[in-house]
Amino acid sequence: MERTMDLFSKETYQERRRNLMKSVSGGVLLFLGNEESSSNFKDNWYPFRQDSSFLYFFGLDLPGLVAVADLEADQVILFGDELSTEELVWHGEKPKLVDLAALVGVQEVRPSKEIGSFLAKSTQRRIHFLPPYRPENTLKLMDWLGLAAAQIQDRVSVEFIKAVAVLRSIKSAEEVREITKAVNHTVNVHRKVMQSAQAGMYEYELLGMVSGETLSGRGSLSFPPIITTDGQTLHNHRYANRLERGKMLLGDFGTETAMHYAGDITRTIPVGKRFSAVQREVYEIVWLAHRSAIAALRPGVRFLDVHLLACRKITEGLKTMGLMKGDVEEAVRQGAHAMFFPCGLGHLMGLDVHDMEDLGESYVGYTDHLQKSSQFGLKSLRFGKELEAGQVLTVEPGIYFIPQLMDSWNAQNLHRDFINFEKLADFRDFGGIRIEDDFLITPNGSELLGTPLETSPDEVESLRSNAG
Amino acid sequence: MERTMDLFSKETYQERRRNLMKSVSGGVLLFLGNEESSSNFKDNWYPFRQDSSFLYFFGLDLPGLVAVADLEADQVILFGDELSTEELVWHGEKPKLVDLAALVGVQEVRPSKEIGSFLAKSTQRRIHFLPPYRPENTLKLMDWLGLAAAQIQDRVSVEFIKAVAVLRSIKSAEEVREITKAVNHTVNVHRKVMQSAQAGMYEYELLGMVSGETLSGRGSLSFPPIITTDGQTLHNHRYANRLERGKMLLGDFGTETAMHYAGDITRTIPVGKRFSAVQREVYEIVWLAHRSAIAALRPGVRFLDVHLLACRKITEGLKTMGLMKGDVEEAVRQGAHAMFFPCGLGHLMGLDVHDMEDLGESYVGYTDHLQKSSQFGLKSLRFGKELEAGQVLTVEPGIYFIPQLMDSWNAQNLHRDFINFEKLADFRDFGGIRIEDDFLITPNGSELLGTPLETSPDEVESLRSNAG
Repeated sequence: MERTMDLFSKETYQERRRNLMKSVSGGVLLFLGNEESSSNFKDNWYPFRQDSSFLYFFGLDLPGLVAVADLEADQVILFGDELSTEELVWHGEKPKLVDLAALVGVQEVRPSKEIGSFLAKSTQRRIHFLPPYRPENTLKLMDWLGLAAAQIQDRVSVEFIKAVAVLRSIKSAEEVREITKAVNHTVNVHRKVMQSAQAGMYEYELLGMVSGETLSGRGSLSFPPIITTDGQTLHNHRYANRLERGKMLLGDFGTETAMHYAGDITRTIPVGKRFSAVQREVYEIVWLAHRSAIAALRPGVRFLDVHLLACRKITEGLKTMGLMKGDVEEAVRQGAHAMFFPCGLGHLMGLDVHDMEDLGESYVGYTDHLQKSSQFGLKSLRFGKELEAGQVLTVEPGIYFIPQLMDSWNAQNLHRDFINFEKLADFRDFGGIRIEDDFLITPNGSELLGTPLETSPDEVESLRSNAG
Repeated sequence: MERTMDLFSKETYQERRRNLMKSVSGGVLLFLGNEESSSNFKDNWYPFRQDSSFLYFFGLDLPGLVAVADLEADQVILFGDELSTEELVWHGEKPKLVDLAALVGVQEVRPSKEIGSFLAKSTQRRIHFLPPYRPENTLKLMDWLGLAAAQIQDRVSVEFIKAVAVLRSIKSAEEVREITKAVNHTVNVHRKVMQSAQAGMYEYELLGMVSGETLSGRGSLSFPPIITTDGQTLHNHRYANRLERGKMLLGDFGTETAMHYAGDITRTIPVGKRFSAVQREVYEIVWLAHRSAIAALRPGVRFLDVHLLACRKITEGLKTMGLMKGDVEEAVRQGAHAMFFPCGLGHLMGLDVHDMEDLGESYVGYTDHLQKSSQFGLKSLRFGKELEAGQVLTVEPGIYFIPQLMDSWNAQNLHRDFINFEKLADFRDFGGIRIEDDFLITPNGSELLGTPLETSPDEVESLRSNAG
């Protein structure tokens, strides 16, 4: 039988499911695979992306699948349909679903149409499901469970979420190998962009390069690439600017492997051959924050504290430049630095680039005892809890000059004790700088994943020596 | 104010809406724009694609918009929200919605949250909506109109559909210019693939090239590219094959312009420098069917009859090759040729690559008097009715050797009078050949859109002369 998808061994999936089923008290676990997603008409599809928890427990990278694990019956069933002859004409021969299921250790396959009646028989027991982020899955849950749309969120199973988060948070050796493959592909695409970007190009030309190189390596994009000379806009998906000498280009993108493990790297480069003196000054601050944070990574340390360490390094640097002032600890405590660094230091990474973001940050990144802060800046830190060996995460400090935010804070007289607003006039067109790499938490510290990509200002300028 | 999207003039949109509002008898027309689409978690988005009818009548290429046209009050209202300061930090400054609305001639903008109460006030009148193809829009309709999911399809407005289809079917000169731009970009990408494909490459490398070249030219893909040596699989999205000398590569892809008008072209090339004798023989048949169909395009001719003409040319050719036999007219009447050509000759094209497929083929491609056939082959012809000047459509005959279909028909003893099954053994690995170009129906005939792309076997081989 032709193997059309990359899978771990059958035993891997069986063990993951066994561990999960042991850790939920009872009832039926419902795993909703994803469907094809329509863009401008039903049959015009975006590239299919399977749900990551479905991939983790069942591996099968096909649309239209649903699985259940019946905890009382100790039974796992996959619901899905074989292709008809007529569908084969359009979509080609595929392995039989029963054969694919066997590859991931599932013996029982039933037609899709039977899921409703299967669940209807189980309504006396708890039916556990994860928070749906696709509207088609909301519609299915409404139909199968007889719920209104507004009731779905209340019926999500926190027990199921927590059990999944515990398992997926710690990566196995084979998962780390897959993530490393994703990071290495990401490194190669970054290096190509860092060498190829030229004044006069449009951002969309580089988007084409990133997409083309990613797909050509049998990968896919792990999130919409950020490739912009407006690096101060954190999630910029416009690609309309023309690259001008004197500006910097921020590239934040990553690839997924065929198994859908993600990479995620950011570099900021001068459009010309060299950083200006002030660009280099800011870059050095971000780089120091990056190295300081990496040095602090080890099991038992809260990532929140690593984040705050990076914030202090950024504040100290901006103080040296005369853009901030006052007591560094107090500035960070009050959140003044967040005008320049309004986001979090990093996030877990795995089958999702923001791993398990669909499950909810309060379960994945925080605990019952450590809740997320509501302070501007800190509230964008997706992950704050203690590090554990086997976690994979990004470290991505940055300094951003966001005119709207500077004007807004200035008008509100916010943090005047810590920010020299009058000195910011020269920085309105500066943009932003971010440096991001991916790390595995090891028993004694951390390990950079993938081959190192040029990071220091000198290394970056050396890569740019043949550029425009 | 920065212009971040490409638009026609204000008057264009006003006139389109005026024409539409004149042709519906009364009530409220509801235009559902699209939302961002989530891939593996809520905020990880596929590239945004606005609904095409929304683009046609309102132009605004932004998520989260809804518009209404109140026919009794002769009033058009856009519902949508301005960005908050905090959203600006993440997504950057955007023009104000009221200013964008003014660019398309809409004076009244209200917050999104008011749409529900607006519609609630109108329940005494008919609220017209088009068939939703996105589940989030199904959920909205359920909420706003108090309907169950199963009721939505029954409440779709045929009057609204027909009125939209009449307008969108006939392209204005400025639309034809946009489509021509899309086709020219498509031609350039095709020519690059036709020159670059080499034995030893994987299909996904060419997918990367097509995606990269498309995005680099500020375009997007108008549908998932088909780039395969298994050309017999009509909608093949796998990209896993390695190109081997002796096989053919079928490339069927197109780009959209920034305004989202589509191009759609197919070429089939030898992986080596030359077609084999039998590949060339089949290619010549498809090419003759292509030219014959094009010569028949003119207002007043039913596209169904052009399709049947192409079927006869294909049948005649296959008869010459000894693969079919018997009376050509009768073979086509009975649908025997459909084993080799199981799909339609073409489809309308415009803001969708299958233009208005979301509105339903029975309204867009057929009439109350000409209904779609249920015969295998003909039932895949999306458009059958009389041609009119101003329509834009594809012409894409093909010959496919589909082992599953050959085996299935052989086992069922289907069409033995017309098919020489025993001669097909040599063709199980042949693949498929399709040739597709895009045409405008003119008052006297038709016009190829875009610069001509190499088509004849000699031209194709000449392009391949430097290839592997």
